[in-house]
Amino acid sequence: MAYITLSKANSIIKAALAKGAEGGMRPLSVAVLDAGGHLKAFQKQDGSSMLRFEIAFGKAYGALAIGAGSRTVEKFAKERPHFMEGLVASSGGNVIPVAGGVLVKNAKGEVIGAVGISGDTSDNDETAAIAGVEAAGFVADGGQG
Amino acid sequence: MAYITLSKANSIIKAALAKGAEGGMRPLSVAVLDAGGHLKAFQKQDGSSMLRFEIAFGKAYGALAIGAGSRTVEKFAKERPHFMEGLVASSGGNVIPVAGGVLVKNAKGEVIGAVGISGDTSDNDETAAIAGVEAAGFVADGGQG
Amino acid sequence: MAYITLSKANSIIKAALAKGAEGGMRPLSVAVLDAGGHLKAFQKQDGSSMLRFEIAFGKAYGALAIGAGSRTVEKFAKERPHFMEGLVASSGGNVIPVAGGVLVKNAKGEVIGAVGISGDTSDNDETAAIAGVEAAGFVADGGQG
Amino acid sequence: MAYITLSKANSIIKAALAKGAEGGMRPLSVAVLDAGGHLKAFQKQDGSSMLRFEIAFGKAYGALAIGAGSRTVEKFAKERPHFMEGLVASSGGNVIPVAGGVLVKNAKGEVIGAVGISGDTSDNDETAAIAGVEAAGFVADGGQG
Repeated sequence: MAYITLSKANSIIKAALAKGAEGGMRPLSVAVLDAGGHLKAFQKQDGSSMLRFEIAFGKAYGALAIGAGSRTVEKFAKERPHFMEGLVASSGGNVIPVAGGVLVKNAKGEVIGAVGISGDTSDNDETAAIAGVEAAGFVADGGQG
Repeated sequence: MAYITLSKANSIIKAALAKGAEGGMRPLSVAVLDAGGHLKAFQKQDGSSMLRFEIAFGKAYGALAIGAGSRTVEKFAKERPHFMEGLVASSGGNVIPVAGGVLVKNAKGEVIGAVGISGDTSDNDETAAIAGVEAAGFVADGGQG
Repeated sequence: MAYITLSKANSIIKAALAKGAEGGMRPLSVAVLDAGGHLKAFQKQDGSSMLRFEIAFGKAYGALAIGAGSRTVEKFAKERPHFMEGLVASSGGNVIPVAGGVLVKNAKGEVIGAVGISGDTSDNDETAAIAGVEAAGFVADGGQG
Repeated sequence: MAYITLSKANSIIKAALAKGAEGGMRPLSVAVLDAGGHLKAFQKQDGSSMLRFEIAFGKAYGALAIGAGSRTVEKFAKERPHFMEGLVASSGGNVIPVAGGVLVKNAKGEVIGAVGISGDTSDNDETAAIAGVEAAGFVADGGQG
């Protein structure tokens, strides 16, 4: 399976939101993308602000773009802001270089999609994303800061 | 209530997909937008092709744009293509002027969101969208052709 | 295998160019995309004009967008120009609604990528694309006009 | 000859990938552009992440933009970020100001194209690009940091 199924995508979102509730996080927006960067499923909790979809999507998209969790994308942005400026522009504004975008890998280590979450702190967003990915039986890669 | 809740958005998607399954429709992509045109929830069934999110979103966005179901948007496009060309461009490419985008109205007649579906014929997409909206207890407006 | 390999992508291009040479076609540009619409391999023959990459890419991208060969995309454009106008805009200008974009399917019928060719007539472009896909051992879907 | 031939472009890619394999580099994406900044040939190795084409292309495009290898583009970005911000925007997001974009010059010193590589460190990307250009009998200009 190189593509994430809708059933699994929904499971990831459910578990991520449960993690958020458990941790008393603010309302979250959770996007699940397939390996090609196309939206598979999304849910925005009530009270999550206006552009949270775009932010959640952009975190996941950035992770897929370079093949590492978005904590690594954020590290790159800090180290070489000119690179990130170019990447953001060349992606048509689809990359948000901030932690909380997590690669979804299967048992073979293949990237089958990515999850992006926005709404609380980036660290908490990432924690919820990793919990969602692992609850669905996949391996999560949030990147390294 | 002027905004659709996540719980209701998920109900709409569930009922729309059930309608699709009941009717033997092809795999569907279902987007629910709030009254401000921002994505609230989305699900893409396995096998639904690459840009179906963009198409489903664009149908719902177009409905909100002019305050009528996207069957009306399509009618406008046929009658005055120059108007639609301007609207498509001014929306940043977010309007898809085709049936299957349905306004979600509450009992007072207030627009609280919109649903867009893509995957089968436009008529079937609209049928599934209306079924979803009504199953969630709202009034559906698919527009007039 | 849900993703096309580089080895197979190169085989497709080689066979497509051989078909073009055999048929005395004008210089061709051949793009192979993965299932997510991202470029895997490309070759532009000497004398193929300036924007042939964009055209070849857009044919393949359009095929993936709606899940049918771009002859079908072209049919849709003729029948409902307003739909195609919306799709072109929502894709960020990545869809070229003309024959010559061919889906690449594996033995299970799964879409693993797409090939787009530009340079000669659309019919000849499509003929070369289908020849390339089949020579690489895959099933070609050019769409229906 | 002011334009690179397809045969030479393919030779550059082949030699660049061989250099990558020899050096144990991660999967690479290699783009060859003609002197007008238009794509001539491209190959993405299996496992090279989603936006590597855009990054490889942007390095080569940036080199052509200012007439120096992209190591110089990166130097400019560090020295005058406001200039690079303008250049990135005015190029429509086609410039990635990072090392790994190498000008291809003929014996007369004329720029006949550029190669951009992404996948490993920028230094390694550049090493592979220079190896590719030189193996094809041209002079490589990677720029100065």
